Amino acid sequence: MRNALYIQSGGPTTVINTSAYGVITACRENSDKIGRLYCAEYGMVGLLNNRLIDVYSEDSTQLELLQQTPSSIFGSCRYHVTDESDYRKILTTLQQHDIGYLFYNGGNGTLRACRDLIRYLDSRNYDCNVVVVPKTVDNDIGGIDHSPGFPSAARHVAITVSELAHDIRVYDTGLITVVEVMGRNTGWLAAATLLSSRDGNGPDLIYTPEVPFETERFLKDIRGVYEQKGKCLAVVAEGVRDSGGKYLFEYGRENAVENPEISMGGVTPYLTMLLRGEFPCKVRGIDLGLMQRCGMHTAAPVDLREAAQLGGAAVTAALNGVSGKMVTLQRVSSSPYLVKEALADVEEICDLDASMPLEYITDDKNYIRESFLDYIEPLVGELPKYANLKMNLA
Amino acid sequence: MRNALYIQSGGPTTVINTSAYGVITACRENSDKIGRLYCAEYGMVGLLNNRLIDVYSEDSTQLELLQQTPSSIFGSCRYHVTDESDYRKILTTLQQHDIGYLFYNGGNGTLRACRDLIRYLDSRNYDCNVVVVPKTVDNDIGGIDHSPGFPSAARHVAITVSELAHDIRVYDTGLITVVEVMGRNTGWLAAATLLSSRDGNGPDLIYTPEVPFETERFLKDIRGVYEQKGKCLAVVAEGVRDSGGKYLFEYGRENAVENPEISMGGVTPYLTMLLRGEFPCKVRGIDLGLMQRCGMHTAAPVDLREAAQLGGAAVTAALNGVSGKMVTLQRVSSSPYLVKEALADVEEICDLDASMPLEYITDDKNYIRESFLDYIEPLVGELPKYANLKMNLA
Repeated sequence: MRNALYIQSGGPTTVINTSAYGVITACRENSDKIGRLYCAEYGMVGLLNNRLIDVYSEDSTQLELLQQTPSSIFGSCRYHVTDESDYRKILTTLQQHDIGYLFYNGGNGTLRACRDLIRYLDSRNYDCNVVVVPKTVDNDIGGIDHSPGFPSAARHVAITVSELAHDIRVYDTGLITVVEVMGRNTGWLAAATLLSSRDGNGPDLIYTPEVPFETERFLKDIRGVYEQKGKCLAVVAEGVRDSGGKYLFEYGRENAVENPEISMGGVTPYLTMLLRGEFPCKVRGIDLGLMQRCGMHTAAPVDLREAAQLGGAAVTAALNGVSGKMVTLQRVSSSPYLVKEALADVEEICDLDASMPLEYITDDKNYIRESFLDYIEPLVGELPKYANLKMNLA
Repeated sequence: MRNALYIQSGGPTTVINTSAYGVITACRENSDKIGRLYCAEYGMVGLLNNRLIDVYSEDSTQLELLQQTPSSIFGSCRYHVTDESDYRKILTTLQQHDIGYLFYNGGNGTLRACRDLIRYLDSRNYDCNVVVVPKTVDNDIGGIDHSPGFPSAARHVAITVSELAHDIRVYDTGLITVVEVMGRNTGWLAAATLLSSRDGNGPDLIYTPEVPFETERFLKDIRGVYEQKGKCLAVVAEGVRDSGGKYLFEYGRENAVENPEISMGGVTPYLTMLLRGEFPCKVRGIDLGLMQRCGMHTAAPVDLREAAQLGGAAVTAALNGVSGKMVTLQRVSSSPYLVKEALADVEEICDLDASMPLEYITDDKNYIRESFLDYIEPLVGELPKYANLKMNLA
């Protein structure tokens, strides 16, 4: 009976350990077909250094808690395997532990690393069923309706922006607020803040990386809202870039040669600097930061369920002889919300880097269309309700 | 039958509207004794401009939702009433609406404003029972075990820092993280992050404004942890200052004459700049920001209950003829958690600006003693549990 290996890869998400739980549970349930289950310590680096964690030696109560523990508990790395000697070390580790099933939990970078690893293992006639469990907060994996990790990050930004929208209205003084959300290449998370606008507590403007960011246009947009309301709340994805493809945070970096620290917060420092030069009122920059990828207290119930489900589905697939595939979700309907499991070919999807469809972005390129709600609402789940008062004067 | 007025004052908190709900409910229940209930629009500014919101014209379902709506829904201001002409305008507003009961919801600034207002109304023989409902995230009000607003902010920072502590362990590379929390003059919120350390996922170092911040000592502390663990997570209250009483964020401001934006984020930009000059590893600064005062999704159940309770208690007190008092909570026991309502004299407590007792701070001045848990645990409530694995290698 051969053994299984589970690897966490790339950046953490809120529910990646929930997928680990799904893999572990399914492996245990198939103890007649799969021997031991190992987890690589710090991702691929654990394979290179032959450091595999023996999952079944863990306390089962603690393993249950994986479902609600954020951020890649087995560790991850940014190391990219490219040379032959690394591959040989990996093969040695796999052989030594007789790994016949490999579950790789990651995003686009992982898919490409996985493709290369499969090609190498094939070239060496090493028999191993490799299945990818998707994971990303950016939602930029191709071949899937949405990836585990995204719904929880989306819920985090939607709730947080609703709350901030309440906070910024407290004073009767001018205020421009820029909220930066994750999304290096896609605007899915920025777009998710549209959910908070349903009861009038959302952003006035939303900027995504899918369309070029024009500074003059941005200032004009802000001015328009500010002159009407005396306030403006703009949500900006960290990955917005100009028409030449240059990231806006690179502008900040150039303006900060002598103060490198202002370049580290993404796009907010640059935009707030810009706005302070143009508007006399208070300008506030808020980076929602790492909490988007580790905020278990705002995890979306659908996400928790699907993350575990896809972990289990990967094990089932591998036991059925599947290899070189990613387990995916296809949406059957949005209302009622229904998805079905499927498999996507790693070779086919690993270079897709899926963006948000442009049809979701308004003609003005500064907001998201209502049609996006069909997609996002069932993923994020019900949001808190807040009082909406008429404020009639006596 | 005379009318009542409710005023939100100072900075918002997560549960200040829950106190509003308590006041509204109690006034309604006493409709045989209190006529109309008004809320000042934008706090004291609403009194000056005679803009009072007619609460009973609101939909009752929406008023119910006040219990779960963050951040001073009726608005607040930073305006300080000092001159006679302002007081005359206020008196005119009170007279016009025949206000016999005034409920002032705020912190230390509000207590002082309230003291002055009471003195003025007394000097003009205007009969009005004025009762303060306490509110602060900093927990710096005297004469009370803890103020509504603080437990929820404390819960927010405790949960968020636990989650961040998971996130920063993901990579096997050096990392120093500085997390800035609110607390201009007190370290209560910084100290509350001790709760996250109970399962090994908390900060390594905690700095509060109660003891002078020594830069050399700070760097030595960080180095000590970093050399042992390869990582360091330090929590710093925004209000830390040097032995001369100068705020650390003022240092940042001086270092940022040409880039004023780095001075706006409090103490984090300065400390991260400092650390980047001293350590070769990645240094990350995270400001938990406004979410500490508006994060309704992390509100502490005890806080929600007590915020409403004290709103109601203020109405009861005013109806009993009490004036010039703040409704307070005195702790009877921590286990089981039991508090009793009491009244504190506004004149006596308005200048106290309560700090955290020094006995809670370790001799090294860089951490909080376990004895603090007795105080904070019942306020914050049960925290999420996370998996704690042994990580045995195969």
